[in-house]
Order: sequence, then C-alpha cells, then structure tokens
Amino acid sequence: MSKGTVVLAYSGGLDTSCILVWLKEEGYDVITYLANIGQEEDFDAAKKKAESLGAKKVFIEDLRAEFVEEFIWPSVQANAIYEDRYLLGTSVARPCIARRQVQIARQQGAQFVSHGATGKGNDQVRFELTCYAMYPEVKIIAPWRIPEFYNRFRGRKDLMEYAENHAPVNLYLMTKNPEDTCESPDVLEIHFTKGVPVKVINVKDGQSKDTPLGIFSYLNEIGGRHGVGRIDIVENRFIGMKSRGIYETPGGTILYHAHLDIETFTMDREVRRIKQGLGIKFSEMVYNGFWYSPECDFVRHCIDKSQENVEGKVQLSVFKGQVYILGRESPRSLYNEELVSMDVQGDYDPCDASGFIKINAVRLREHHRLQGEASSNR
Amino acid sequence: MSKGTVVLAYSGGLDTSCILVWLKEEGYDVITYLANIGQEEDFDAAKKKAESLGAKKVFIEDLRAEFVEEFIWPSVQANAIYEDRYLLGTSVARPCIARRQVQIARQQGAQFVSHGATGKGNDQVRFELTCYAMYPEVKIIAPWRIPEFYNRFRGRKDLMEYAENHAPVNLYLMTKNPEDTCESPDVLEIHFTKGVPVKVINVKDGQSKDTPLGIFSYLNEIGGRHGVGRIDIVENRFIGMKSRGIYETPGGTILYHAHLDIETFTMDREVRRIKQGLGIKFSEMVYNGFWYSPECDFVRHCIDKSQENVEGKVQLSVFKGQVYILGRESPRSLYNEELVSMDVQGDYDPCDASGFIKINAVRLREHHRLQGEASSNR
Amino acid sequence: MSKGTVVLAYSGGLDTSCILVWLKEEGYDVITYLANIGQEEDFDAAKKKAESLGAKKVFIEDLRAEFVEEFIWPSVQANAIYEDRYLLGTSVARPCIARRQVQIARQQGAQFVSHGATGKGNDQVRFELTCYAMYPEVKIIAPWRIPEFYNRFRGRKDLMEYAENHAPVNLYLMTKNPEDTCESPDVLEIHFTKGVPVKVINVKDGQSKDTPLGIFSYLNEIGGRHGVGRIDIVENRFIGMKSRGIYETPGGTILYHAHLDIETFTMDREVRRIKQGLGIKFSEMVYNGFWYSPECDFVRHCIDKSQENVEGKVQLSVFKGQVYILGRESPRSLYNEELVSMDVQGDYDPCDASGFIKINAVRLREHHRLQGEASSNR
Amino acid sequence: MSKGTVVLAYSGGLDTSCILVWLKEEGYDVITYLANIGQEEDFDAAKKKAESLGAKKVFIEDLRAEFVEEFIWPSVQANAIYEDRYLLGTSVARPCIARRQVQIARQQGAQFVSHGATGKGNDQVRFELTCYAMYPEVKIIAPWRIPEFYNRFRGRKDLMEYAENHAPVNLYLMTKNPEDTCESPDVLEIHFTKGVPVKVINVKDGQSKDTPLGIFSYLNEIGGRHGVGRIDIVENRFIGMKSRGIYETPGGTILYHAHLDIETFTMDREVRRIKQGLGIKFSEMVYNGFWYSPECDFVRHCIDKSQENVEGKVQLSVFKGQVYILGRESPRSLYNEELVSMDVQGDYDPCDASGFIKINAVRLREHHRLQGEASSNR
Repeated sequence: MSKGTVVLAYSGGLDTSCILVWLKEEGYDVITYLANIGQEEDFDAAKKKAESLGAKKVFIEDLRAEFVEEFIWPSVQANAIYEDRYLLGTSVARPCIARRQVQIARQQGAQFVSHGATGKGNDQVRFELTCYAMYPEVKIIAPWRIPEFYNRFRGRKDLMEYAENHAPVNLYLMTKNPEDTCESPDVLEIHFTKGVPVKVINVKDGQSKDTPLGIFSYLNEIGGRHGVGRIDIVENRFIGMKSRGIYETPGGTILYHAHLDIETFTMDREVRRIKQGLGIKFSEMVYNGFWYSPECDFVRHCIDKSQENVEGKVQLSVFKGQVYILGRESPRSLYNEELVSMDVQGDYDPCDASGFIKINAVRLREHHRLQGEASSNR
Repeated sequence: MSKGTVVLAYSGGLDTSCILVWLKEEGYDVITYLANIGQEEDFDAAKKKAESLGAKKVFIEDLRAEFVEEFIWPSVQANAIYEDRYLLGTSVARPCIARRQVQIARQQGAQFVSHGATGKGNDQVRFELTCYAMYPEVKIIAPWRIPEFYNRFRGRKDLMEYAENHAPVNLYLMTKNPEDTCESPDVLEIHFTKGVPVKVINVKDGQSKDTPLGIFSYLNEIGGRHGVGRIDIVENRFIGMKSRGIYETPGGTILYHAHLDIETFTMDREVRRIKQGLGIKFSEMVYNGFWYSPECDFVRHCIDKSQENVEGKVQLSVFKGQVYILGRESPRSLYNEELVSMDVQGDYDPCDASGFIKINAVRLREHHRLQGEASSNR
Repeated sequence: MSKGTVVLAYSGGLDTSCILVWLKEEGYDVITYLANIGQEEDFDAAKKKAESLGAKKVFIEDLRAEFVEEFIWPSVQANAIYEDRYLLGTSVARPCIARRQVQIARQQGAQFVSHGATGKGNDQVRFELTCYAMYPEVKIIAPWRIPEFYNRFRGRKDLMEYAENHAPVNLYLMTKNPEDTCESPDVLEIHFTKGVPVKVINVKDGQSKDTPLGIFSYLNEIGGRHGVGRIDIVENRFIGMKSRGIYETPGGTILYHAHLDIETFTMDREVRRIKQGLGIKFSEMVYNGFWYSPECDFVRHCIDKSQENVEGKVQLSVFKGQVYILGRESPRSLYNEELVSMDVQGDYDPCDASGFIKINAVRLREHHRLQGEASSNR
Repeated sequence: MSKGTVVLAYSGGLDTSCILVWLKEEGYDVITYLANIGQEEDFDAAKKKAESLGAKKVFIEDLRAEFVEEFIWPSVQANAIYEDRYLLGTSVARPCIARRQVQIARQQGAQFVSHGATGKGNDQVRFELTCYAMYPEVKIIAPWRIPEFYNRFRGRKDLMEYAENHAPVNLYLMTKNPEDTCESPDVLEIHFTKGVPVKVINVKDGQSKDTPLGIFSYLNEIGGRHGVGRIDIVENRFIGMKSRGIYETPGGTILYHAHLDIETFTMDREVRRIKQGLGIKFSEMVYNGFWYSPECDFVRHCIDKSQENVEGKVQLSVFKGQVYILGRESPRSLYNEELVSMDVQGDYDPCDASGFIKINAVRLREHHRLQGEASSNR
C-alpha cells in the first residue's frame, strides 16, 4: 500500500539516486523530474538511470527558454547583485525549477515533492518557499533534514565523492582561467529594449543572436572563452551562517555591465536612485528564496516599469576576465551633448549655479552658526 | 585701492593663470594656493609662474598624507561608489583641497576665495559647499560663472587647448592599457584594522608598505601597472545633467575589492545591510559636494562604528585590468567552517530549517489563499 | 509696445493686486488666473477687482474635482506625510494650480507666468518646478525675488496687513478648537477601492457621499466640526531653513487614519514595508515641489500598483480632535481569524516556530561566540 | 533524579502556574522569576503561590528603573513606531525581562529557561532570541509549543478564562475612555537632553519629576487620565500572520509627540532623514525580537549619536485623548527667526532661489524634451 506519490527533483547523480531508492523503501511511488536549464548533462542517461532505479514516471523538461526570459531577464533589469558581488545564478534557477515540479505534482495528483538540497543551505529554502507559495497544501520531503536518512547516508564514500565533485577545485565549468585566455578581445554590441537584451552582435565576425536563449547562451560562450565572471566570496546565507561560494557567471557578468550602462544613459537620475534601492531589495528576496511572493511580484512590476525607456545599444569588449564598456547609443538618451558642453551656453545660465550652491549652503551655514554658538557657550 | 584679498586655487595651468591675471585686473590682491594631493606636477614651476604673474603670496601645500588618511580611508570603509561604478576619486579630493584653502584664507585675512571650476560641473559645488560650510561669510569668485570673464576667455585658443588636454584621449595618466600589461599577475596581501588598510605586502618580491600614503601610492603603482580601474561611464551630475566621465582609479579599485571582501567576512549580515545603505548615501553626499555637512559627519561616524571588527588580511591577484580575491583570514571572522560543513552536525539541527521555512511560508500561503478566493469570486 | 503677456496667479488679495499693477507698469499684458480648489473666496469680487486693475483677461477655474481625484487621492494612497507630521495640504495644491496656469499660458500664447510666492518659501519652488516641467521655455516672473519690486513694496502697511492676516492666530479657518467641539462623536464608515475612498456614510444620521469631491468636502466638514487635524510644527523647508507651520487638515487626517488601517488589513507585510519607503520618498518629492517629475511619476505608479487589494470599509469615530478606528472589514483581508486563534491549530504547527526561532538565532549565537573569543583574547 | 533546573518566567496567573506544575511533573527543578516592570500585580501573592506550587526558589525582580532607562528611552530617541502606529510597549519589555531571566539562570546554574508565551505570537520570539543571544547554550522549554502540554491544557476552562481576561474588552487598564475624561487639559513642559526626557513639569500645579522612572510613571498617569494612547489595529506578526492588537501607551504617546517635536526643531534636515530610516529599521528589529543583535546594537549607537543636539523643552497640552504641541524652546535650535522672516533680508538673497529652482529644473526640462521627442517620433 503506497504512502502516496512523490515528485522528486532528480539530478541523475548519486545523491538524488539514493533519495529515489530510499523514498521507494519508505513506501512512496516516485516520479522523477529533471529540469534542463542549460547545464551540461546527459539527460538520456539520467532518464535510464531513474527508470532502472524504479521511478514510476520520468519527466525531463526543457526550461531553458522560460528560464532566460522569465527569470534571467528580470534579474538583468534589476541589476540584481547580492551583497555587492554575487549575480544570483543558482538563486534564480530554483524558482524556475520548482515551479515546474509543482505543476507536475498537481497534474500527476502527487501530494509530495522531494529534493536533494542539504539542511544548511539556501537551496532548500528557495525550493520549498516556491512549492508552498504555489501549492500550499503540498507535503515536502527533504531527506537531508530527516535523521533516518542522513544518519544512514552521511558517511558513505560515494556521497563523499559527490561532495568533492562540487568542491571549489573543479567548480569552473564554463569559464577559462583568465591567464590562459586568448590575447585578443571580442567586441560585442548588445541592443536593449525595455531593459532587456534583444540582440547581440559580435563586431569582429558579424555573428548575431536575437532570441533570449540564443543571446544568453552566446554571451556565456564568449564570456567563458575570456574567463569573465569568476568570483570567490564569502556570503551570508539566509539561515544565518556565512559560507564560501565560488561562482562563475560569464554571460550574466557581461549583461550586468551592459545593462548598467544603458540604464544610466537613459534613466532619470532620481528614478534610478529609487530603482537602485528596489534592485537591492529584489536581490535579497531572490537570494532568500522569495521569488514567488507578493513583495517580489510588486518589486518586479516596479522595476519593469522603470525600464520603459531603457533602450539602445552598448558596445563593449571582453578580454582577460574583464568587460570594458566602449560606448553607448540610444534614441531615448537623456545625455545632451550640447547642454553639457563647456563651449555652448544654450539655455543654461551658469549664474544659476551660484544660486543653486548658495541655497544648498543655507543649511550648512546654519549648522556652522549653531556649532559656533555651542562652542562659544562652553 | 585693493578690493580685498583672494585666495585662488591655482593649478599652474593656463586657465587659472588667466584667472589670476583677471583678478588682479579687477583690483584684488591674489594669493595662490596649490595643493599636492599626489598628482604629477612641477610645483616649483607653478610657484614661479604664479609669482611672475603677480601673486602676492604663493602657498604650495603637501596634503598627500591627510588626503589619504582623512578622505580616502573613510571612503574605503564606506565602499563608496557612485551610481554603482564611480569610485569618487576627484569628489573626495575637493573637500580636502578646499578645506586648506579656507584655512589659508582665514589665516591671511582674505575675504575671498576663487577657483577655476566651470559653471556646469560638480567641482564648483564641491568646492563652494566646503567653503561655505567652514567659512560661512566667505565671498566666492567663480570666474567661469561671471559673464565678463567667460565671454572674454571662452574662445581663446590656449584655453581650448587646456580643454583638449583634459579630453578623454590622454586622460589615462596612471594606468596602462590592459592589453599592454605584463603577462604575470602580482599577488598582494592587504591587512586591515577597523576597516582601514594598515599594511600591504607583495607576495612575489616581499615588498611591503605600512603607512597610509605608502600603501595608497603603492597600490596605485601596482594597479596602474596592470591596467586596473579604468572606466568609461555616463554619470548624473548634481546639477541635473548627464555627462560622460572617463576615470582611472587603480589603487582605489584594489582597495574597494579587498575591503568588500574582508568586510563581508567579518561583519554581521544585517549590520552590513544597513551599512550598505549608509554607504550609498555617503557616496551621493560626497559626489554632490556635501563632505562637510551634518549628515555626512553623521554617516561617517556610523560607518566608522560599523568597522570595529573589520580586521584581517585579504590575498588577491592583480592581472590584466582585473582584481581577483584569492582568500582571506581574520581573527574576527564570523565564518565558521564547522557550522557550515555538510559533515558536521554540531549544534545545528537541520530539522529547525523545516520550521524556519514553514513559518516563512505562512505569509506566502495566506497570500495564495486570498488570490484563490479572489479569483473564485470573479 | 508690450513686453509680452503674463499669466498671473491671482488671489484677489492685496499682494497679487500689487503685482498685477506692477506688471502692467513694467509693460506687460496681464491675464489673471484664480483657481478654485475649495477655499473660501468671493470669486466674483476677485474677478471684478482684477478687471478694474487692468487685467486683460480673467480666468476663474474650478479645479476642485480634479484636485481631489488627481492630487489628494494619490496622496491618500501614499499615506503621504512629511517629516512624520505634515499631511501636505498646500504642497499638493501647488502643482494642481500651476498645471492649469501653464495650460492657460500656452493656450493664450503667453510667454510669461507670475506668482506672489515669497523668496524664502517652498511655494515658489513647487510653483516654478511645475511650470518648467510642463512648459520648459516659459519665463517666470517672481516679483518677491526682484529687488525693484520687493524694495518698493516691502514696507507698505497694507502688505504688512496681508502678512498679519496669514499669521497663526487666525489661521484655523476650517477647524473648531477641540475644547469647544460637541460632546458626542460622529461615527463614519469609509469604503475604499484600490486604496481610494469611494463612499462615506455617517452612521448616526445615514448621510452618505460617493463622489470624490463630495467625500472630501464632507470629511472636511465633519473633521472641522470636531477639531480634527490641527498641528503646530517646525518643519524643514526645501531651501534649507527651518520654519514654523500651523496647519489644519481635517478631512486629510481622517483619511490618513482610515487608509492606514484598511491598507495594513489587506496588504502583505513585506509589500507594505517597501511601499512605506516609497511613501516617504513621495512625501519628500511632493513637499519639495517635484510632483511633475519622472521620479514622482514612477513612485505614484508603484504606489498605485500596491493598492490593488486595498479594498473594504473602515469604521471610525471622530471626537474632540481625535480619530478612533473602531473596526474594519474587507473581502480581500489577509487577516485570518482561524490562523491567528489560540484555540484552533489548523494548518499551523507550533513546533515550526521553534525551528524558526532557532534558525533566526544562528546568527546571534555566532555573534556571541565571536565576542566571547574577542574578549577572552584581550 | 532531576532532569535539571529551569528558570520559569512566572506571572502568578493560571497559565504559568500550570506550567510550573507540569515542569515539576516532567522532572525539573523549577525556579520562578517574576519581573516588575511597572505592571499592576500582587507580587507577594505571586511569590506565595509559586512557593506553594513547589518552586525551589522564587525571584521577584524590580526592573522598573532599568526598563525605562535602557529600553524605553532608546525607543523614545528612535521615535520607534511599528507599521506607523504601534509604539512597541510589550516588544520593548521582553528583552528587558528575558535578560534578567538569563542572568538568573547562569547564576543559579540552570540549563533551562521556560515561558508561557503561545506558539503563534511574537513574544515567544522576542523572549527566546534574547535568551539565545545572551546564553547560546541555553535550552528553552516552551510548553505551548509542546503537544503533550498543549493538548492537555488547551481545553481547560480555567485557561480559557485566562484567555478571556486578556481579551480586548478589559484590556484598557491604564487609560480612561476619552469620552469620560475631565474637561480641562493638563499642560506639561518636558525637558530633553540628548534626546532623552530629563524633567517634566505640570504647568497647572507645578508638579515636577526628574528621574527616568518618575517621569515615565507620571506621564503614564497624566496620559491615562486623559485617555491618551489607545489604539485598535491589525498588525503583521513576525511569524507571518496578521493579528488584531488593542494597545494603550499613554506615557509613550506623549513622549513620542514631544520628542518628535524637539528633534525636528534641533536636528539638521538631512540627518533627520537618515535617522528616520534607522528608526523604522529599529522598530522592526525590536518588534521582531532582535533587541539583542549586532544590528540593533549598531542602530541604537547611530541613533544615540544623532541625538547629541536634541535638547530643549516642549510645551504640550493633554486633553480628550489628544496631545497638542504648544511650543518649543532650545539652546541648540536650528530655527532662525531672522533667516526665515519675510521682512528681514539678512544674509539671504532671494535671487539665489531663482538659480536654485532653475538648476533643479534642468533635469525636469531634459525629461520633457525627451518625452516630446519620443512622442513626435511615434
């Protein structure tokens, strides 16, 4: 008699294979689900493995396009960056993956979902908050938080190997070491509409991409070739501990710089200031797992609104781990060469600046007066 | 009969030389003042030039040490960065220079100060707000905002040349082009106490510096050699226009990355979040010219307080325009390897994470319930 | 030969009458414009006076409905309050009045606008920023900043009287002294849709209003009768000085409390937190005169978005200067009596709270550990 | 054989008496601890009851003075207010009470602490975070989260009565109904130094208090007599649910208004703006139970710094539930009557305001230009 059906987020690796087997032992019917969000993976082999281990059904879902359009693009609009350095790659993938898992669970009549995230990490939170937000009655089985599971599997050599395979040394899968990259830069032109990249052109060879997935994959390739986007950081997890993270985000890094540039070029200063604060909040929410939350919906809406005029193209070079902005053009630029020129007076009367400064100084002079009085009274 | 004494911020260049002569023509006694904040300059030649043009007195002041300690160091503590990109080099220099100018004016009994900043830029504001804040009764003569001056000098070829000399092409004085830099990285170890660098060691050759000025100059040298810290941006000036800026901040860029790293390593997550907001405010104030203001005093105090535990050393490599953090150590680290380890349970019970997540989901599930009701009522 | 046409914001009082005459003396054709935003005024008398003083045309515009709908309502949605106390009455009126003035100027081919605001106040800024934002080429004549005008009129007795008439003593025009108000409360029910009041019912006598202007006028009347919304404050003007302000906002105060209540009842906690920050920014913008600015447009849009679920009714009593919230109801409430009850367990497992608290304590215990180490090392 | 010693936060009521007995049944030695923070309570009776129920030791601690000085006063400095309405009375009491409990536990060698807070409320969090922050190894027994306890006691009539006694109807213990309060106001003068009240004088009868506890108790008495500080709100608990709260904070409400007034009078505008943001953060932290946290320490320090010049006296009247500010005086006021006067020009040149406004309009006019272009291109 089955305890019910579980949809398990399955990676094909040893750990989720252990979970699959254990769930069956515990009396569940197990449906495995593997999302393709662009990672290198032998999906066929994973499918066969899951079937051979007794999965009742196997779902392999290509989420690449929706991942880029619905999750990466809003993060680009937000200039999302956690604690000033981390571009949120994995954080953004979780809600995308979990959303589909929950859809499968509902559609397959499964009351349970399960995953292989550990009990000290962020991914468990990101995964589960998405599940609860979209399927509030769901029951979640997190084996790495269940003593019967983790006491049994913790010491196993093969799982240790799994851990090793994810350790820093081999982590860089997409990017070359900048010391070993080629000696000539690639020069790209990235076109934006409403804060979202719509085309990338490689100036050198004329290659061009204009679908979201095409653009993002190409930027990952170019960025990777030049060693762009590697970081080694200590970050603050949502659950309250500091952890070391080693990340590579080649395409994301290029887009971060390009978007920042076109945004500053086309967006009013004060709008940008407010939007910057919203972007920081967005990053914290996403990092902490609140993609599907009323506040993240709200902030995404506001950020999207701010991007109405973020349009134009940015030219940049990618070289030895660096992204250099070379220039930008926009039909909606607020940059006014004549206004800013030292030689053209135009509409601008420099005498106004005297008044501007003096009025700004009123408060400072009052403060000085008070301090003088205070010190003369002592 | 003299109209009074003016202390003129004098650069030795053509434009402030014109101002010097013009002020004399207008009937003022002129004292010139040239601050050494580390720029390349022939100070002797400038002195002679000022004297030959009729300066009553010539002050050449070495402000390098106080510039680093009192202005750069607090900016490092703040991770000061304007509009996510500009490290505020010049912005921070203005209050340092103007402070001394005002001191000279008071001490010399001068009622007037003057400068060569243009009428559309930020520097006029930074300069004058400092003057008004520290010497509220001072009278400021800003020739580039006075029609009699600028109508007369605007078209002059030599002044045009001055402008050209400050144009983008030749702007990079400190940094090499990353394409031309040496092929092997320098590896540095930077030690911090209370958020301020106290020593730098070059791991390769053992060179070491431990005075503020020594450290900062050395980082400028190393950063410059590897082409670190060049940016080409469009920024928003305080007076409301966008302008293009090309900057190089080699030492500042190294320090920005190193400080960010040691800070995240040693500072509590939530303190950091509040401090990040204060740092953004600090950057805006400094950019806009409010270094000497009650709010900037206040924020500097708060940021300084936040740095109490920011202590330790960061290892980094500098290569081809990039700064890579290699690692960090601290006696006050909040990073706890055992706590974060997947293999050691220690004090941490992973079951608690389930409760943590479920309580965080209460709100999300309520939101879902409401939306469901809303849609079923339609 | 006329210097051109000026549209003058005319109040019918002595000061703007002086301005009218002076502008004519200076050689302008003068069109007067008087906005009715609900103030007590003899508009006919003002019209006649303007004509008799030589106004070329006289516009009297009833802006009451648009003032409430387009300016007051967004402020209610924002819970707009400046420096924690001032409900922004006048600040919100200025852009409404100036917008129409600019429209008249454009339509009448006038290149100039003029107003009677003083040179030290906020109103000049609010007025003129609106004009520049909507009619960038407009020329503004602000006589109180023009030495020929203010040196001539400053000492005049009649103008002094004008000033007196605006002095604190007689300022309260709408509200009774709470000590003299009636001894029984009025109980109102205010209905909101999308954060905006759509109906008010007086529970005692069944009176009801359901147009924006009707609602607002009625709340002013009820609030005034009970002495609601008087404040005596010192505030910080945009131009950098502190000034004393005595205000009465009877209807606005009732709406502030009612909206705050229904908003908290229906809005997600974290959305509210972000929206609270936006509301503070909005208040500063409006106070400073930036109603018509890209940032204010943006923030209004975001706040409006946040109000989608702010629907329901609030019951309150108005008595002796106070507004007491008695209760609230909403079809979109996030308040869940069952969830919050001590007696019903429902879906909520109190054990989860233990995990929630322990995970929240991870960071605090780490901090304690570090401090212990630090002190034991001393 | 005892399981160990528990220090129980004991109220003398039925619920904590049940807990006391249950803990003994479970095999613990129980020390009871009752904090006097100013509530009405028969402490002797509580002591006898605890002893008769088998408490091994009974601590009754008078924390009134430290509660006011170390917890209320910093909240006054912060203008602490949660979600724009709740003055944080209970929230601030928890850390004060729990701190002493933890001290007793350490000193008595107790490994356990226990409390009677429910599993859905905020108080459990406030209590326990304080315990973990100050005594990380402590074990907490929260019976209302332990099924064996709450399943047994939940239905009991006497506990139900306990709940009723805390229900809204009888909640107002300190304040009279404003409809029944006396017909003449009390007028008070409150003196502040560094943002903290140092003296209160009743202008009518000359009564005066100048100790923290004396001041706070007196303000509670006066406020209570006039029905000040009652609110009926829905608030957002930290654990994610909305709950209804009915509070009375008579003295706190008077202090909130008085402090706000003297603060605005003496504090620079921009410092205040930053401090306002910190105060909001402080309120959230305190409400959520993070009084003892690195971020709350940091923010308290910053807020305290901001209060250096907050000095002077405020006159106010208290009447029918309202607090009216009548006036303020300060030796450190930034209010400058001459500067703000319409009749005195002084140092202020109104022409400067023209420049100030025009420069502020640069950005708005640019925005208008762009929009015009955008629409003409359509």
